[in-house]
Order: sequence, then structure tokens, then C-alpha cells
Amino acid sequence: MIPRHLLTLADLSPAQINRVLSHALTLKNQSQPWLQHVASAKSTKKLRLPSQSLFLKTVALLFSKRSTRTRVAAETSASMLGGQALFLGVDDIQLGVNESMRDSARVIGGMCQGIFARVGDHSDIEELAAHSPVPVLNALSSLWHPTQVLADLLTLHELAAGARPDWRAPTPAAPSPPTPGLRTRNPFAGLAPLRPLTIAYVGDPANVLHDMLVAYPRLGHTMRVASPPAYRAPAAVWDRLAELGIADAIHWTADPAEAVQGADIVVTDTWISMGQEAEKAERLRAFEGYQITEALCANAAPNWAFMHCLPRKPNEVDDEVFYGPRSIVFPVSDNRKWTIMALFDLLFGRWDLYGENSNWVAPQSADKAN
Amino acid sequence: MIPRHLLTLADLSPAQINRVLSHALTLKNQSQPWLQHVASAKSTKKLRLPSQSLFLKTVALLFSKRSTRTRVAAETSASMLGGQALFLGVDDIQLGVNESMRDSARVIGGMCQGIFARVGDHSDIEELAAHSPVPVLNALSSLWHPTQVLADLLTLHELAAGARPDWRAPTPAAPSPPTPGLRTRNPFAGLAPLRPLTIAYVGDPANVLHDMLVAYPRLGHTMRVASPPAYRAPAAVWDRLAELGIADAIHWTADPAEAVQGADIVVTDTWISMGQEAEKAERLRAFEGYQITEALCANAAPNWAFMHCLPRKPNEVDDEVFYGPRSIVFPVSDNRKWTIMALFDLLFGRWDLYGENSNWVAPQSADKAN
Amino acid sequence: MIPRHLLTLADLSPAQINRVLSHALTLKNQSQPWLQHVASAKSTKKLRLPSQSLFLKTVALLFSKRSTRTRVAAETSASMLGGQALFLGVDDIQLGVNESMRDSARVIGGMCQGIFARVGDHSDIEELAAHSPVPVLNALSSLWHPTQVLADLLTLHELAAGARPDWRAPTPAAPSPPTPGLRTRNPFAGLAPLRPLTIAYVGDPANVLHDMLVAYPRLGHTMRVASPPAYRAPAAVWDRLAELGIADAIHWTADPAEAVQGADIVVTDTWISMGQEAEKAERLRAFEGYQITEALCANAAPNWAFMHCLPRKPNEVDDEVFYGPRSIVFPVSDNRKWTIMALFDLLFGRWDLYGENSNWVAPQSADKAN
Repeated sequence: MIPRHLLTLADLSPAQINRVLSHALTLKNQSQPWLQHVASAKSTKKLRLPSQSLFLKTVALLFSKRSTRTRVAAETSASMLGGQALFLGVDDIQLGVNESMRDSARVIGGMCQGIFARVGDHSDIEELAAHSPVPVLNALSSLWHPTQVLADLLTLHELAAGARPDWRAPTPAAPSPPTPGLRTRNPFAGLAPLRPLTIAYVGDPANVLHDMLVAYPRLGHTMRVASPPAYRAPAAVWDRLAELGIADAIHWTADPAEAVQGADIVVTDTWISMGQEAEKAERLRAFEGYQITEALCANAAPNWAFMHCLPRKPNEVDDEVFYGPRSIVFPVSDNRKWTIMALFDLLFGRWDLYGENSNWVAPQSADKAN
Repeated sequence: MIPRHLLTLADLSPAQINRVLSHALTLKNQSQPWLQHVASAKSTKKLRLPSQSLFLKTVALLFSKRSTRTRVAAETSASMLGGQALFLGVDDIQLGVNESMRDSARVIGGMCQGIFARVGDHSDIEELAAHSPVPVLNALSSLWHPTQVLADLLTLHELAAGARPDWRAPTPAAPSPPTPGLRTRNPFAGLAPLRPLTIAYVGDPANVLHDMLVAYPRLGHTMRVASPPAYRAPAAVWDRLAELGIADAIHWTADPAEAVQGADIVVTDTWISMGQEAEKAERLRAFEGYQITEALCANAAPNWAFMHCLPRKPNEVDDEVFYGPRSIVFPVSDNRKWTIMALFDLLFGRWDLYGENSNWVAPQSADKAN
Repeated sequence: MIPRHLLTLADLSPAQINRVLSHALTLKNQSQPWLQHVASAKSTKKLRLPSQSLFLKTVALLFSKRSTRTRVAAETSASMLGGQALFLGVDDIQLGVNESMRDSARVIGGMCQGIFARVGDHSDIEELAAHSPVPVLNALSSLWHPTQVLADLLTLHELAAGARPDWRAPTPAAPSPPTPGLRTRNPFAGLAPLRPLTIAYVGDPANVLHDMLVAYPRLGHTMRVASPPAYRAPAAVWDRLAELGIADAIHWTADPAEAVQGADIVVTDTWISMGQEAEKAERLRAFEGYQITEALCANAAPNWAFMHCLPRKPNEVDDEVFYGPRSIVFPVSDNRKWTIMALFDLLFGRWDLYGENSNWVAPQSADKAN
């Protein structure tokens, strides 16, 4: 039997996405009392321990790029699940340099129970997944960033339950049809249902956007994107959108003001990612007029909120928006932890992300499953 | 509510300092049997477990400089308290480079329960403390090194209880008046009381000395310092000494022999700290005649002891003293662990360093409290 | 009392080697059900926990060279034994640069319960061992690589119990005479006895080979080596072989085909180790004709197996052999974990590697014991 992996949210059905979010909320609610109070025998006697499914287990963090949020979320999550994260950075292990990716995947997967990998080119994580005897979770690649978008979504659901009742669906959304093999009957358990929202991404289309594109439309939301004509999603992303039947659902423009029109949420990302420093001058020129400001978003919904995956540079968003009351960047950042904890629990600990009987598949059906 | 931090021993009252030392001794006595015997069900049934107040919790170690002692002490301490230390070095996270210090403090503090930070300029740790939602403990800055001086003090108390009865106060010192909010009534519990000692610091005045200056005089000891005229403590240190009312208590000279006259303890530190390699020749010249040797200390107390925070170079102390019977450098180094464990327990685990009701303060009173 | 160390398998008797292997097999059998199933209260109620002898303890990993297998094995092992591994790489701590090896050994050994060290020159680990207050285990040095050869041996025993009945001794081997102080009466407990095997090492003679030379002949196997005349084992290795009385047991030749004649197992290692990149051209020339291929091994035993400590380059072995059915490289790699876990348990956790009463010796008898 070989394991199934999670390389993008396109690998998950809407019901599976909601189940991960619901599980993240459960873990957060179970864990926070332990963190806020002294863990003495007396004060914790009545507290329920979060899942300890990683007990005795190790998740290898193979990170060929630097990381703060994803790494801290992963290391704290593994520990809270009773296990261990083993960080192997670019100075510890040069993936594919001193040893082939294939051999490293087999060796590390033979001693650890999961691989959480941050790579450069997406083909690297595909190579790891092809040869790893244990599940591989994408911590960021040139194409996708699934864990970021789960944290965004959890935050929107939490806000709909509290500070943003206007984002809440007036009546409970019809529960999705049960997914075979998923034990939780109601995948929305605990999650406040969201009304259809309009999300406007303004800036450099990259991995975070790609996972938004494959996730939001399938969850009932509208995606709009503004980017300069020379900056569009690559063919591999359009192929996945076509497969999912949502390629036509994306409204793409070169005019930021058009994209944010009526938007409930405005999102951007850095214009110059790690490794793109050489293109800096060119990129600053291309994205002129794309900085998120109150003025640019004058025609967005009155209570529009601002999201950013961080780290942030002032180029793409000014201080007024970033540090102002519209910004939900830090609640999203906090939720990186609980969504990654949910994935670690389901994918590496319980082998239950795709349902108990379909997480490990026979080699002959692997191409179809993964 | 915002947390209080510990950036220097000047932040603590003498009673609070003694309470940390007393707690460190308790943790050491509880822990050592676990480390010295096989932890089998049989042999450990009657052993008391040290505080597990970091259970499920993570302390972020933000270290922009290399460290051996402080890091090993922190990582082993967090683990013994049932939690996890997450080391983020200069290659993992460039504080203030790829992301503002402010954003990093908020993000990391949102996923961890404490920050132990080793920075260059002291203003960096002040910036972290200003924006962190969790307590910040200073692991070394340009101005202060509080954890080192606590390890020095614990060692002096232990020696007074054993090998150095001449350092013990003849009658129990009068207990300090109870500090509001501190549960332990007798802050000296378990600590052998010290008679007034004379401590002579000879060499480059730096962070370790600064914390000695704000601590020893308030604990009843005499501080003498010898340094070349061009090397004196900065204004920020004198300001704290003035605030504490002990600026006049320091005897400062340019003559090493004068400083060590009658001293019970002679201390030095490296002449060339990390980052000062360019000034090497100039510093070697400036500190000529400052090397600690038996000859230099001919007029010290007959049983004078030698302390050094390590790492040591032969410039500042010769082998005869460093490896000889006067040297207490390695017991002090061992005590880095137990004093840091006590601070982690009280500041990050129990929120009780400043007393249960004053560890987290309302924002409006924060300026006064911190 | 000072501790005994393990720097090479020459430090262990054959009975002690078999005891480590037997213990590794026990730990593997106890641990695997925890890793293969969800660790829920229900499913694990009847599972026995592996030894938790490192509870509250820390093993320092002092690695002055990069490592994948040894490090991952060590970090996962420490964690499974209830403790912690603290990795200090070349960027974290420059052994012997900023602080003398002697002082670092004393300081780190004062806060940790064991040292697992990967060094350049073997004299470095001897220096660490001479000054460490806790046991030192060799994770690789210029001369020896004991943990690799234990993983090789465990794999051979496992294969003899299953897929390779032809490697099994026809009748149980006579148990070795009991070693004083060893509690296990039958050191082969659980291990399928091996018939005398012929092991042919073809290539660059280095640390892995050296530990094979001091181990295999004493366990009843035949060692043959093929290397170019300029590449032979250093005098320090021959001295240990002479001490053990097996210097004459090694068959050494410059003809690879002669070495592999009738061999049950063919082994090689990289031709260009870390730090030898400058000699690359010269080494490629010297080892021409040494690549392990089906053709080269035409006269080996019909079912010869292939071993390699990894990482592998195609120079020394072609894809057909390396990825083919003869290759046992990945089962050996997996066993790095269980053999290191056994050593950590016996040497650092239970102080029982050399028998309970001889693991810590009085200083006067230390030279003899170590």
C-alpha cells in the first residue's frame, strides 16, 4: 500500500476541506485552555487533551526555503499532538544535491511518519511524493500553498460566528452529501456557515492565489484577480481549474479598482518573493498602482477586510490598512497553527484525511488517487 | 491584558531575585534523581516530578547570535518542564530583515507561549517586548545578561551551604518583607544565606557586569570594577543604577590590583566579544595587565574564588587560575540550566514571576510596570 | 566515577555486540505497532511502550559534519525513548574554534546526559571523551563509524530469519560465555543466528570499513577488501586489529574480482567523502574498475546481496544493482534508527552497555576501561 499526499487543496473535495476546518476549530478549542492556564494537576483535571495521534511519531520538515509561520505552526503542532517535528533546512540537507531526491524520500520516510516539505520548483515535491513511503504535505511550492488558504478560511468562519455576523449565511447551508469513508456526518460541525463572499486578490499571482482559485469557487465564493497582463497563473494551475470545472468562474482583470469593486475581502501578497530579488526593479514598476490603500478600495464593500499571508512589505499595502481595523492578518497567522495541526493529525497521525479506507491505496490505483 | 517581561535583573526586587534562586534550587533537587538513575517505573515511583507547567507549550528561542550555554540550558529546561523550545537562529529567521521586528513578535507570540531572545542592540529586545503578546525573557543583549548573574548567585549560595562555610551569614538573614502577590512567604527558603561578599570585576565592562551592578549591591554585597578609562558602562546602565539608588555603591578604578584587594570573588569576561573582532589589536593593548593570575590577585582574600561566564580565552585568565581549585566556572555553567528552568517555569509556565496578579497588566499601566 | 564511551565496535566484545543487536530488535518490535496504528487510548491499551529511559534527559548531537541518516535516527530515537536530542551543527557551535574542545565537553556534558558526536579527525572525539562527564558515542569520525555496522548486522540477522534462510546457521550457534555484569543471559535472544558469511568490501577503505574489520571476523565472518594499493587502512586501525588478534584474518587485494569471488555480501561506499572534493579527479582515476555491477560480481555467490551506507553516487555502484532486488540498502538505512535507539537506551539511559557495574569507572582505571 502506498500513501496519499496533499499537495494542493485541489486534492480535497469541498466536504473534505470543511472537515479539516471543523477539526482545526475543535483542536483550537480543546488546546487553548491548556495554554492559557497553569497546567497543574488541579486546574487541568477537567480539561480534555487534544488528539495525541503523533505519540512516538516524527514529522520531517524538509524546508529548502526559510520559513517563520509555517515552521513555527508545524513544530508547535507536532508537539501538541504528542509527537516531534524534525526540521531539516537547506544547511542540514541539500535535497537533490548530495543525494538524489528519490533516495532521500525513501530514507527519511523510512524513519519518520510524515513529510512536510517546502521546496522551490513544484516538481521537487512531486518527486518526493512519488518515492516517499509516508504521506507528504506541501508546506509551499512554486505552484501551491494549501495550508495558508485553510488558515484564511478558518478565520473567515470564526469571524462569521462573532465579529462579522454579516458574513454568516442567513440559514444553515445545506450539508454536503456525505463523503464515503468520512466518519464525521456533518462536515460543518462547529463552523459558522459563510454566505457567498467576494474575494479580490490584487497583486502578484502566486502559490497562495493558486490555492485560493481551486478552493473558494468550489465553496460558493467569488474570486476576482487583478494583475498586470504579464503576470498570470501558469498552465498547470489552469489545468487543475479546468479539471475541477471552475476555470470560467475566475474574473481576471488588469485593473485593481475593478477587481475590488464590491469585494468583501481584499488580499495581496509580497511582490518580490524569495529568489526573485533580481527582478526587483522590474516588479516594482509592473505593480505600480497595485498597493492596497483605502483610496484604491473606495468601491469595495463598506466593511471590506484585508488579508495577507506575511511577511509583508509596505510596497503592496500601506500601514493604514495593514495595521488598521480592517486587517485580519494576525488572526489568520494565529490560525496557521490550528489548521496545520488538523492536517498533521488527520494525514500523519490518524491516516484519515481522505477517509479511513482510502488514505493508503494499492500501487495500481495510485495514479488515479493522487 | 499585556504581559510583563524580564530584560534585566533591575526589573526584579531583591525578594523576587531570591525567590527565583530558591525555586531554581528546588527544581534542581527534584530533577537530579531523575537524571542520575534509570527512569524505570520501579526506581522513579517515589520521585517527585518537577513542574510540568510548559506542557503543550512552546518557548521560541530567537537567537540572532550564537550560543552554547544559554541555548542548551533553555532547550533542556523547556523539555524538563514538559514543553518544547523552538530554536530560531540567524539563518532561520533574520529578525528585522525580511519582516519587521514588530510583525515577527506578534506572529511568533501568537503561536508560542514565551520568547527567549538573544539580540545585538538592546533596543531590538525592547521592540520585541513592546509588540509581543507573550512574555519576553532576555537571553543576552548589548546591555544586559540577567540569566548569567542568576547562575552566579545560585552557585554562591550552594557553596555557602557546603564547601565555603566562610561565605555563609552567621545568623539567618532577616527575611525580606513579603512582596505583594508572591505566594512563597520566605523568599530564602532552602537557600543558605550569604554574608556580605566583595566581588571584583576586572576587564571589559559589558552586559554580564551590568547585571551584576544592578543585582549585587541590592543583595548586600560590594561591587568593585577595574577597567581602562575608555571602557566604562554606558549611560543607560547608570540611569538604572540611579533609579535603584545604588549608583554611588560601585567602586570603579583603572587599577586591577586595587579592585581585587580583599575580594572574595574575582570575575572577568572575554575582552573581545562576538562582533568586536575588528577591534582585537586595540583591545588587547587596552587590557594589558588585566589578565587574572595568582600574582595579580595576591592581595585578594586568601580563599578568593574565580568566576567567568564562558567561553574563555587565555587572554583574560591564565590556565593556573581557570583550571585550578579557585575556579567555580563549571558549577556556574551547570547552574545556567536550573536558573533558566526556574525563569521559564515562573515567567512562561505559571505566569507568576511578578506575583500571580501582576504578571499581566492592563495596557494603560504597562509603561509603569515594565 | 567517570563514564565509559563507545568510539568503535572494537570497544565491544562479540557478546556485547550481539546484545545491542538483540535489544535493537526488541525495541523495533515494540515500537512498530505504535507507528503503524492510530495511537488512540483504545488501540494502544494492550501495546507495550518501548523503554522510556531518556525521560527528562537530553542527548547532545555535536555534529561538525552534515548528516541525514544518523541525525534522523538519533532525533527520532531520543524522542521515542521519552527524551530529547539537541542538535548542534557547525553553524551552532564551532567545536574547538570559539571555545576549546575541553571546555565545551565539560559544559555540554554538565547539562546533557549523553553526547553523540560526528567529528572530522578522530582525535577530536577522543578529546571530547577525555573531558566529558557523560558517555560519548561516535556518530562518525575519520577512523570509525560503529553505528553503521550495527545496522548492517541487524539487517543480516533479520534477513536470515525471513527472506534469506540460506544465511541462517543450521543449528543454533553456541551461546557466548556470559559477560560479567550483563543481565541478558542469552545474547542472541530473538536474533536468528547467522552462518559464517563472506563480506567483500570493494572501494575506498574508510570509517565504515574499519568498523567492519574489527567486528565481522570476531563474529565468525570472513572479510575481504579490494582497494587500490595507495588506499589502505591507517596504522591506528591495524593496531586495533592486532590488539584483537584478527589482523591476519583480513584478505586484502587490489583486484575487485578476486575480492568478490564467492562473496555473500558485496559492500561499497562513496569514493569522494565530505571534504575530499579537491581530490575528485585523482580518486575517480584510482577507483576505475571498482564500480559494483552485475558483471564485476559474476563470480560472487549466486544470491549475493548489496550494501551501501548512503548517500550513494552512481560512480561506485550502477542503478541496476543499487535499485535492483539484490540491494538491501534501504532496510539497512531503516535499521539505523533501531540500532541507534538501542545504543542510546543502553549507553545514555540505562548506563548498561558495558554491564551495570562497569559503565562508570573510577578515574584510576579509566585508561584501561576506555
